[in-house]
Amino acid sequence: MSTSRKAAIVGAGPVGSLSAIVLAKRGWSVSLYEGRPDPRLPSSKEAARLRSINLAISHRGICAINAIDPEVAKRFLEAVVPMRGRMIHHLDGKLDSQLYDRDGQCINSVDRSLLNEALLEEVIGLPNVKVFFQHKLEHVDFEKKTMTLKDLNTGQDVLADFDFCIGADGAFSTVRRQMMRVVRMNYQQEYIRDQYIELKLSAGRDADGYPTFQLDPNHLHIWPRHSFMLIALPNQDKTFTCTLFAPSSELDRLRTPEEILTWFKLHFPDAVSLIGEKELLRDFTSNPRSPLICTKSNPYHYLDRALLLGDAAHAMVPFYGQGLNCGLEDVRILDILLKEEGVTSTTVIPPGSIDDRLARALFRYSETRHEDLVAICDLAMNNYIEMRHLVTSPLFLFKKALDNALYYLSSRRDMSFDAFNTVLSHLPYGLGEPRGWVPLYTMVTFRPDINYATAKKRAARQSGILTGIGWASVAVVASLGVWTVRAARLTLLHRSQA
Amino acid sequence: MSTSRKAAIVGAGPVGSLSAIVLAKRGWSVSLYEGRPDPRLPSSKEAARLRSINLAISHRGICAINAIDPEVAKRFLEAVVPMRGRMIHHLDGKLDSQLYDRDGQCINSVDRSLLNEALLEEVIGLPNVKVFFQHKLEHVDFEKKTMTLKDLNTGQDVLADFDFCIGADGAFSTVRRQMMRVVRMNYQQEYIRDQYIELKLSAGRDADGYPTFQLDPNHLHIWPRHSFMLIALPNQDKTFTCTLFAPSSELDRLRTPEEILTWFKLHFPDAVSLIGEKELLRDFTSNPRSPLICTKSNPYHYLDRALLLGDAAHAMVPFYGQGLNCGLEDVRILDILLKEEGVTSTTVIPPGSIDDRLARALFRYSETRHEDLVAICDLAMNNYIEMRHLVTSPLFLFKKALDNALYYLSSRRDMSFDAFNTVLSHLPYGLGEPRGWVPLYTMVTFRPDINYATAKKRAARQSGILTGIGWASVAVVASLGVWTVRAARLTLLHRSQA
Repeated sequence: MSTSRKAAIVGAGPVGSLSAIVLAKRGWSVSLYEGRPDPRLPSSKEAARLRSINLAISHRGICAINAIDPEVAKRFLEAVVPMRGRMIHHLDGKLDSQLYDRDGQCINSVDRSLLNEALLEEVIGLPNVKVFFQHKLEHVDFEKKTMTLKDLNTGQDVLADFDFCIGADGAFSTVRRQMMRVVRMNYQQEYIRDQYIELKLSAGRDADGYPTFQLDPNHLHIWPRHSFMLIALPNQDKTFTCTLFAPSSELDRLRTPEEILTWFKLHFPDAVSLIGEKELLRDFTSNPRSPLICTKSNPYHYLDRALLLGDAAHAMVPFYGQGLNCGLEDVRILDILLKEEGVTSTTVIPPGSIDDRLARALFRYSETRHEDLVAICDLAMNNYIEMRHLVTSPLFLFKKALDNALYYLSSRRDMSFDAFNTVLSHLPYGLGEPRGWVPLYTMVTFRPDINYATAKKRAARQSGILTGIGWASVAVVASLGVWTVRAARLTLLHRSQA
Repeated sequence: MSTSRKAAIVGAGPVGSLSAIVLAKRGWSVSLYEGRPDPRLPSSKEAARLRSINLAISHRGICAINAIDPEVAKRFLEAVVPMRGRMIHHLDGKLDSQLYDRDGQCINSVDRSLLNEALLEEVIGLPNVKVFFQHKLEHVDFEKKTMTLKDLNTGQDVLADFDFCIGADGAFSTVRRQMMRVVRMNYQQEYIRDQYIELKLSAGRDADGYPTFQLDPNHLHIWPRHSFMLIALPNQDKTFTCTLFAPSSELDRLRTPEEILTWFKLHFPDAVSLIGEKELLRDFTSNPRSPLICTKSNPYHYLDRALLLGDAAHAMVPFYGQGLNCGLEDVRILDILLKEEGVTSTTVIPPGSIDDRLARALFRYSETRHEDLVAICDLAMNNYIEMRHLVTSPLFLFKKALDNALYYLSSRRDMSFDAFNTVLSHLPYGLGEPRGWVPLYTMVTFRPDINYATAKKRAARQSGILTGIGWASVAVVASLGVWTVRAARLTLLHRSQA
């Protein structure tokens, strides 16, 4: 072990933990630093509960964990609640189920801390990983390859050295800020006008007094109200975590308990009765109002010694449910590149020189990953409009139905539908790989073999075709209308002549 | 004086110094902190010489200084070299003069340190300002209104308190970074692919041995070479400061003295012979290759206690020569808002409460200034293409001539041209205020009464009209051609029949 090179990973969230597993499996001697206390301590659990949106993890994220550690993926899947589609709650109480996937594929609701703890347990079990909680990064010297951390247990500064440093320390990453001192990094951060507040929807009781879900557990529930929305994700304990997204100007107007309840009853009458007025008031007034930020960076690496992964590299708004999936995929791609470039944990790199293989792997990471990361950040931003507004629009529903019909047709395996696919592939600005028609949501969520940038470009082309078909349909309907009127007049004329 | 409120200004460049004058004149007790040594020391001068592009200061910047201190403006104007237009150096040695303004208005070339020292002298003469050199900001506590600075003379930390803090500490502002901890600030930084290197073109000697300019001193000289360019600005000592702007990939290819000279002789033969091969090689290899960065932020203020001005708020690429002009205008606008909101330097604000007037002035600053700052950052970026490429394009020159012709027509005071202006004002999406036709460059550079955002929007409309006229002219020319051919054929026909 003493000849292994040292990796310092900052941030022991799911992305940092998965990175630790990757590097430990490749023989590195890994130190994983986390500013917060051990999340498995009871005192940490309450703090964590208030902190973040429930997670939706999809095939893309599971595929990433599975590629690195199938055992963890298997155990993790036992802790999720699958969601087959969106359940739209209309203002009049009407419900509408919109399935995510024709073949019944699901996204999975999971408590962020459950996933985090599952990965951490795995990390702590590895012989060549040391985990340091309550170690807050203060400074990195990338030339000397050392970092200074404050040990919050003792109040002392700790100096650590590393060969390779991974920043998985979230949207407000200290590693990123330190890298920006030595890397000419393009960087962008944008707060959207909306904020979010979490509200708890507790379990009901069945006839025998056992806890039961108050809403269909296999859906992601949405109350779309155009300029704001409420969503609810199921938990294994039969509760739901509700999240209200609204412009801060809208929230600012709600100051007294009366104003709050009146507003909720006006827009979400069914949710208020399920959550309970007292509980709603308590959560709304005591839970934090959190901002939503989108960040983009480029490049993500520095020479052969530093890399940003997950939210530290690309924080996105949560409306495509891809934030964590994308972060886990970052780690899978790093793993592939380390392998492809033949990076080893035992190569001896003399002081002052560069590990060319690792440098090439990291350079390729920045080069190939950037377009995908920008694409998913943009898709997530656009999806907010879909979730809070478009899902109620007839045109949206018509295009969605058509989208699914084409998907169905193009994936049939019989001869006649092969012809259909051939037509598709010859359309102007052809759709390219993969062949056939795949809806955007399916590509992003269920097809890790299609990268985000390809999904976005391809969906733009498909959307153009759908709009074309839409207009053509309008034209046909209009012609039929004219034809019907004419036919009717002719008939009348014949009758009057008869 | 003891009842005066305290202003801490970080950064003693032109923007910080002008801010100090504004606040001191309004009765504040001002501390001006600068990380570098006193620029008036001989040892500082050499360091400063290597640091930055020569400045072009235009009517907008002068107008800002003049509004705050007419004496300084007057003295400053004695140290500049006026430039009436661009001098294009074609590859074949041909020269082309393009005047900036029909009425002979000029921009002014000035050594950055001369301007800086002139303003600093003024500041140091004011009784209620203290200037601290070699004081490097480390941390700001905006709640307690204190800042920690390292005194580089003693190595000790110094604690200073303030009521109002101005960050005028440049593109990599520490004040901005500290503000981002408490303000939800949108922020963006982008490095362009190009870098710049400064080269010195020394004075020649006239027949009597006196120093003389080697190029026309009343022009900004440009060697546009499409993907890169060289420019030269005159100095009062008869030298020119040349700046090469080129993609870093282009510069990376020049490694040996032979490669460097061959490249320069290929693209800038006349410049090489003026600069001298030895001097060129010395400057090219020893002067720094500096990056070009564009940053945007929003908001610029925090409550009643902090404001970003100049490059700290909006670093732009130097291709419109507006960076400093814009920074000085920031100060002029702050001055106006402080006056309009009735902010005083003696109001006693109890600890923990807010100065509503100052808060309102700063809020209005962010609200009203942002669109202009984004506009000029974007215009500066676009102007690079014009400078290195378009100035040689016939279509560009045609549109420019038309632009100036319309400007001439619309500013004639006789009756018939009033009719012309009336037509202009009735065009679709009318041009709005000011009436008439004003070329973009003139609006940005010579018309501080037109803000940047208005200039940009208006120029986009004017450009649409110019393109329209361009196409119409093409059509007319084409029809005339057809008509001429027909007429000629008819004539021939007549002749053959005769």
